[in-house]
Amino acid sequence: MDIFDRLKAASPADWQSYVDHAFVRRMGDGTLPEAAFRAYLVQDYLFLIQFARAYALAAYKSRTLADIGVAQEGLAAILHETGLHVRLCARWGLSQADMEAAAEHQATVAYTRFVLDCGAAGDLLDLHVALAPCVVGYAEIGRALAPDGVDALKDHPYREWIGEYAGAGYQGVAATARRHLDDLAARAMTERRFTELAALFGKASRLEADFWQMGLDLGAAAAR
Amino acid sequence: MDIFDRLKAASPADWQSYVDHAFVRRMGDGTLPEAAFRAYLVQDYLFLIQFARAYALAAYKSRTLADIGVAQEGLAAILHETGLHVRLCARWGLSQADMEAAAEHQATVAYTRFVLDCGAAGDLLDLHVALAPCVVGYAEIGRALAPDGVDALKDHPYREWIGEYAGAGYQGVAATARRHLDDLAARAMTERRFTELAALFGKASRLEADFWQMGLDLGAAAAR
Amino acid sequence: MDIFDRLKAASPADWQSYVDHAFVRRMGDGTLPEAAFRAYLVQDYLFLIQFARAYALAAYKSRTLADIGVAQEGLAAILHETGLHVRLCARWGLSQADMEAAAEHQATVAYTRFVLDCGAAGDLLDLHVALAPCVVGYAEIGRALAPDGVDALKDHPYREWIGEYAGAGYQGVAATARRHLDDLAARAMTERRFTELAALFGKASRLEADFWQMGLDLGAAAAR
Amino acid sequence: MDIFDRLKAASPADWQSYVDHAFVRRMGDGTLPEAAFRAYLVQDYLFLIQFARAYALAAYKSRTLADIGVAQEGLAAILHETGLHVRLCARWGLSQADMEAAAEHQATVAYTRFVLDCGAAGDLLDLHVALAPCVVGYAEIGRALAPDGVDALKDHPYREWIGEYAGAGYQGVAATARRHLDDLAARAMTERRFTELAALFGKASRLEADFWQMGLDLGAAAAR
Repeated sequence: MDIFDRLKAASPADWQSYVDHAFVRRMGDGTLPEAAFRAYLVQDYLFLIQFARAYALAAYKSRTLADIGVAQEGLAAILHETGLHVRLCARWGLSQADMEAAAEHQATVAYTRFVLDCGAAGDLLDLHVALAPCVVGYAEIGRALAPDGVDALKDHPYREWIGEYAGAGYQGVAATARRHLDDLAARAMTERRFTELAALFGKASRLEADFWQMGLDLGAAAAR
Repeated sequence: MDIFDRLKAASPADWQSYVDHAFVRRMGDGTLPEAAFRAYLVQDYLFLIQFARAYALAAYKSRTLADIGVAQEGLAAILHETGLHVRLCARWGLSQADMEAAAEHQATVAYTRFVLDCGAAGDLLDLHVALAPCVVGYAEIGRALAPDGVDALKDHPYREWIGEYAGAGYQGVAATARRHLDDLAARAMTERRFTELAALFGKASRLEADFWQMGLDLGAAAAR
Repeated sequence: MDIFDRLKAASPADWQSYVDHAFVRRMGDGTLPEAAFRAYLVQDYLFLIQFARAYALAAYKSRTLADIGVAQEGLAAILHETGLHVRLCARWGLSQADMEAAAEHQATVAYTRFVLDCGAAGDLLDLHVALAPCVVGYAEIGRALAPDGVDALKDHPYREWIGEYAGAGYQGVAATARRHLDDLAARAMTERRFTELAALFGKASRLEADFWQMGLDLGAAAAR
Repeated sequence: MDIFDRLKAASPADWQSYVDHAFVRRMGDGTLPEAAFRAYLVQDYLFLIQFARAYALAAYKSRTLADIGVAQEGLAAILHETGLHVRLCARWGLSQADMEAAAEHQATVAYTRFVLDCGAAGDLLDLHVALAPCVVGYAEIGRALAPDGVDALKDHPYREWIGEYAGAGYQGVAATARRHLDDLAARAMTERRFTELAALFGKASRLEADFWQMGLDLGAAAAR
């Protein structure tokens, strides 16, 4: 059991509320309203900007060239991912200007600033535990939504999104992040601290569930 | 027109959505359900913890003993205010243990961590502009809800709360905060930067409105 | 053996270079040139400003009201100490304006910003380990320079300084700081991390020794 | 007159003490002892690690993808520069392991942590003003030491170093940094703030001069 599995096991209800949220299930069976998905995409773009800052924070908090280098690669990867994101959004009729003009929703502010504050107030382990529901969780969700592989998705309306996170590339990113979490924990995690980290992980998972809920709510509001 | 008035004037809709929120109006006319008020009080306690951290951040970001001293007094005042808060809550049947055990709501996380992140990413002016809707806004709300003075509130169900913020003590705190904002702006505000600060202020006001809304929502949920 | 004693034992040469520095020995036997002491006093005033910021950083990085409160008391105590410092300096003919106008010496910048950066990059344990050579070390130095008690110092030229740190008040502050370090270590210190903390402690001790050396150097330069 | 020239003009003595330091002059005329240069190279390697962190801090403090991207490129460039540095050091018989095992000197700690703290306590403009003596100053020094161009250096003992900073590549980096400083100043610099920034710039210049002095001192100590 690696540290990520221990964290999940410590907050099973919070974790389920996130990875098995109605938004996720309906994306999986293709019944998610397009308006909900589009609203989610816009906020996810604003989310990525703050996530880039979180990786920059990790680089700043690092003490060796090796650790700075790892964080810098993560930062570069996110900046690259925003490019992919812009293309995915274009496919749904959303321009980069649309996304940059959008107001950041409460749910976006809550999760992203929570992560940044965990990092600023704590150490690298706190920061990466707060990031884990997103970084590792998306890989788990992607895999769950493509049980027969990415090729089997064929005409699925959310094929690109699921394919992105179920694909080998992102699965590798998540596997690396899990190992990194184990390394950080081996260095700085006492059992007493595990209790605090589990609380932090549970809270981050709930904020991620709130983020999905925002997608459903904004989609429903747009449909009215 | 001081800088606070300019900031309000730049985001009138956001400001109104906050100071004239249904939660505020119903607190004013006494029709706010007790469950909503109690839910608000619990989250406001969790809010104060993060606000104390924001004043500590202001002290850390200061460069002179005088500025550190001002921030330290603000921090000491908030720690004192949490004591008052505990007594107010006791009057509504809420113990400190209840409040500390409560989960921080998304709306609480959003506004508090937004403020802390504005301060960490920006300078003292950014931090104090993000704090202003709370620090100065509560004085404005208090005054609006006690148009005939605190003594005229008599048996008003939310008399203590309104009295606290309409009273001379808190009105003085807010007046000092406004002058401090003017000092910071005289030092570091260009007109180009005003546009960014106004956006930040508008966003903070919306997050405060969301905080009131949380009170209504949690109250309605408790009543079901 | 508490954590402080373990840290000292891990860097005996660095620790000795600090607590048994020529500046300290000559202050003890009363042969320290006044010019060196005065130069030290001025830089120590500039040092205290940054130390106040370090305690503010500790409050910002705290997560509970109790921890914020402890840091806030530390901050208030330092602000109070600067008042004492101003009086001590007046006795040596140095006004507060003199001290504020002085340029911060390289040695002052090095130790203070090192501590602040340890705190910003790391967690509360990193911050307090970096502070410990100063906070706890001064109590040890004070005790060593007043082996027969403060009253026996009589006409000693550095009687006020030695008395301040050898006195019961400061000895109590240092004892509390040691226990706090033990609490933080019990929460977050693995054995692997101890190696890093010991390196940090050794480096902080060397920077403190450099600070004494600066006093001697500036004193010698003034005498030329 | 761009902002960089204004900052230099505000602290002419501090600036001269840095760009015209004996270390620089003796590097230029080829009389700098090899031991001094080698000692400098080792500390400069440790310096670069902290500079990488400073660019990561700039990315963290940024609010737009464009600004994050600029800082990320700066960070990637420094990580790349450390590679060049390792090769330059190898030419002088210094391995990466030697450099990583070296203790960080007081002068290295002082300037690097000062820069990082300016950034943490202030805004992006403070951070970049603190970085400017290094980033832009090295280009000025490189140009001054190669008045007839890099090719004319021929058998100069410090040809690689001078060539690196006098070369078109680094001159372009410095020119970009100057324009960036102008952009930041146009956004956030009032005249009142200029006085503070000039003090910060003067202090950073003195800390850079101290860094050269450390090279001479360590070289002299090694020769004994």
